[in-house]
Amino acid sequence: MAGRQPVQNDVAGTITAALVLIGNELLSGRTQDANLSHLARRLNAVGIRLTEVRIIPDTESAIVAAVNQLRTQVDYVFTTGGIGPTHDDITAASIALAFGVPLIRHPVAVRRLVEYFEARGVEVNEARLCMANTPEGAELIANQLSVAPGFCIGNVYVMAGVPKVMQVMLEALLPSLRHGPSLTSSSVVCDLAEGDVATGLQRIQAQHPELSIGSYPGKSEQGYRVSLVVRGADATAVSQAVSDIKSLVQDLGGRFAVE
Amino acid sequence: MAGRQPVQNDVAGTITAALVLIGNELLSGRTQDANLSHLARRLNAVGIRLTEVRIIPDTESAIVAAVNQLRTQVDYVFTTGGIGPTHDDITAASIALAFGVPLIRHPVAVRRLVEYFEARGVEVNEARLCMANTPEGAELIANQLSVAPGFCIGNVYVMAGVPKVMQVMLEALLPSLRHGPSLTSSSVVCDLAEGDVATGLQRIQAQHPELSIGSYPGKSEQGYRVSLVVRGADATAVSQAVSDIKSLVQDLGGRFAVE
Repeated sequence: MAGRQPVQNDVAGTITAALVLIGNELLSGRTQDANLSHLARRLNAVGIRLTEVRIIPDTESAIVAAVNQLRTQVDYVFTTGGIGPTHDDITAASIALAFGVPLIRHPVAVRRLVEYFEARGVEVNEARLCMANTPEGAELIANQLSVAPGFCIGNVYVMAGVPKVMQVMLEALLPSLRHGPSLTSSSVVCDLAEGDVATGLQRIQAQHPELSIGSYPGKSEQGYRVSLVVRGADATAVSQAVSDIKSLVQDLGGRFAVE
Repeated sequence: MAGRQPVQNDVAGTITAALVLIGNELLSGRTQDANLSHLARRLNAVGIRLTEVRIIPDTESAIVAAVNQLRTQVDYVFTTGGIGPTHDDITAASIALAFGVPLIRHPVAVRRLVEYFEARGVEVNEARLCMANTPEGAELIANQLSVAPGFCIGNVYVMAGVPKVMQVMLEALLPSLRHGPSLTSSSVVCDLAEGDVATGLQRIQAQHPELSIGSYPGKSEQGYRVSLVVRGADATAVSQAVSDIKSLVQDLGGRFAVE
């Protein structure tokens, strides 16, 4: 117990983000999330670090509570899901409530939707026009795939749940965000047990408090397998820690590969 | 906007749960979660409904905050991850802090670990014995796969992050939980657009306020595809709503399959 400290994860100047995945289907186990991993990697690439993800149901109180708590804790909040045309799409109305502003029908969004549907001979009905509803004061996030927009208000970015649509919205909004120092990561995969590398790994973590070193066990067909992942803003320090880990594995009689 | 209400999701007598997935690797996008879907389905089967999931880093303050907030809001909190032998495994110590109790070395866990490692000729070192650390007053959760136990304290159940180990721990603890009315769900998949079914679907939802009806769009190679999912505790009501949805799809000239 002595000597165990929380991993140091705070990199100076890092910009932080939280993600709120909205949808009953994610909580019932029916649908496997496909947005978190993509969003985390794209944000990492521009130096924005995801520090929390919440998965919540399509209920007004849950959306208001999560968004209002998280938007004071991180630089950016992203949401996915609940902005389609059906009765269970309540994200826009809930975000308006969270910000204490009215829900309005955004005229630019209406124009884009009407043009898009009319060009395709699709009926422009009230349900489809609901996709133009945004909190008052929100700015639209372009959707190059199917036009129905996302929006941002304050530091909250509201996107679609369908992965391909979320991805085009994310690319549309990324240039408008502040970018931080990008993080480097490197993995050493070895054939030792976690219980054998633990003490040495703890020493290496203590020597590099500015880095986050994680240990992720697995089993290969040949026996033990553990991935030792080093992450940080200082590429030289990451490289030094990786080198220390390789020496540790060799000293313990293990073999390694760097990924 | 008028007539849009939050979906009714509260079923009388339902037992609620929250899941906290602990691990930097989930937030960096390196690792895709494989525990949520399994846990949601196993809990649903015994009438326990997952109402929130949080994914948080391996940091003490994040674990304490999430666990202390959620354990007052739901019947059961489950955590996965951070109970191995390495320096980044800080879940047990953080849960002890959340409950304001000391971290102790559980004598029964020590005995099990020592027997297990000695039988396999594996060194019993301090790092491995750390896996016997639990908050004072916690009860062990058996691990039939690799012995290192999970534990529960209050209404918080702490499990491993490795999916196979999490699954055996979950099976070990499930009989000790209160079980609620089990939920029935049924899906109608049709070849219409969400914007076409939206108005009729809203009417059906309004007629069945005790059910949760969700609409999940996709695209097939033939064009539109939308899954309309009905979920609730009353199997007769679910069946009636499914029947209403089938009629709606037919009236709109669509084709459907029930899944």
